[in-house]
Amino acid sequence: MRTADALRALVEDYLGELALTPELHGQTGSVRYALVGGKRVRGVICLATAEAAGAEAEQALPAAAALELVHAFSLVHDDLPALDNDAERRGRPSAWARFGEAVAVLAGDALLAEAFRLALSYPFPEAGRELAQATLGMIGGQYLDITNTAPDEGTLHKLKTGCLFAASVGLALWAAEVPEREQRPWRAFGDELGLLFQIVDDILDGDGYVATHGEEGARRLADEAASRARGRLADVPADTSVLEDIVDGLATRTS
Amino acid sequence: MRTADALRALVEDYLGELALTPELHGQTGSVRYALVGGKRVRGVICLATAEAAGAEAEQALPAAAALELVHAFSLVHDDLPALDNDAERRGRPSAWARFGEAVAVLAGDALLAEAFRLALSYPFPEAGRELAQATLGMIGGQYLDITNTAPDEGTLHKLKTGCLFAASVGLALWAAEVPEREQRPWRAFGDELGLLFQIVDDILDGDGYVATHGEEGARRLADEAASRARGRLADVPADTSVLEDIVDGLATRTS
Repeated sequence: MRTADALRALVEDYLGELALTPELHGQTGSVRYALVGGKRVRGVICLATAEAAGAEAEQALPAAAALELVHAFSLVHDDLPALDNDAERRGRPSAWARFGEAVAVLAGDALLAEAFRLALSYPFPEAGRELAQATLGMIGGQYLDITNTAPDEGTLHKLKTGCLFAASVGLALWAAEVPEREQRPWRAFGDELGLLFQIVDDILDGDGYVATHGEEGARRLADEAASRARGRLADVPADTSVLEDIVDGLATRTS
Repeated sequence: MRTADALRALVEDYLGELALTPELHGQTGSVRYALVGGKRVRGVICLATAEAAGAEAEQALPAAAALELVHAFSLVHDDLPALDNDAERRGRPSAWARFGEAVAVLAGDALLAEAFRLALSYPFPEAGRELAQATLGMIGGQYLDITNTAPDEGTLHKLKTGCLFAASVGLALWAAEVPEREQRPWRAFGDELGLLFQIVDDILDGDGYVATHGEEGARRLADEAASRARGRLADVPADTSVLEDIVDGLATRTS
């Protein structure tokens, strides 16, 4: 089993060499630009889950890349002036600031469609189905956020962040061909990851959960989420040591 | 076999009653708004092809709806101020003019993801794969259009319009479970439809092909495209009378 860092390098290389659809013509420039940088957390969780489930990480690479493309799609559209109006992303101009709004809208669209192309490279439709559901949940979360209509913090983050983290485990299970009846303990683990990621994100940014629960309160919630995730992993009948390392990394990360 | 009008009613009813993903929350309002109106040309071609291929039209309804959702997605994003800046669509405010730009961006995203959900409701991945390819071609065409970088008129329209028309036939073949080795004559027909639609569109709007070939020249090109489409249909080993009616309708439409 490879370490999280080795799996991250695998995702990075795959994305760097990803053959985009030639019919996109010059649009590929902004798509590649939007794919540079990022921690690849979702892709790494996907590969680590696939390896823990007994598959080669390589078998889950299209799924891992699809998750990273959906994540990149959401950032490109969220950064638009009409949404979060962020001119910077990962220390560089955001896609719209670099290529203009029109090309950035299309770049997000292309990332999403390419993500489905990747998820559909498997000989079965389940990975694509799960990606569609997760994407729709994420869009719903973004709607609740920008319109300030979320019923509560938990619902908001479960949709905005949790769906795609859960799908990072889910797509790996399909890619590793884990039968549906054996997926439940894995999925229970996947359901805990988004919240852990989100709370730590808010601690690092000093907003969100820190604003509502204070820094100490947020730290406590993060520790509880990490502890639940480890507990769920203990129920998974496999060597989940790399996934445990990933949970530790998510809980203690400083960037 | 049902007439084109009967098939159109079928598409319309299906879209009207379409269950959207509940996790979209309030975002469903703008998605439904963007789905009102339109001629349903792509959906009708899809159902008529499925019936000609020996299936029940109902079997192709998710595919037909997926095509209409991708078309609606493209209109919602193309209408945005940063792209075509159209405040009106089908005699009503366009999505951004009605809901604001932010919600319109998300509405387009949701339409695209719902389209994949529909195309993936089949027990095989091929319909979804073809939808992804067609969508990517369409996005590439839109990029060439807004950046004025198309190598020629033919390439532009083949991508912007042709891909989704060709996929209207293609998705029907998968939905009707026509084996791949028997798909070629059907696909040759599908490849002619986008151009026919586009030229007539330009004749009605007095731009595009009319600007480059004059009205008479454009009319002649449209007649040639219709004639090629009929010729391709003649090579299809099935009762294609409804598809012939659709070609006649595309060639002679006045709106």
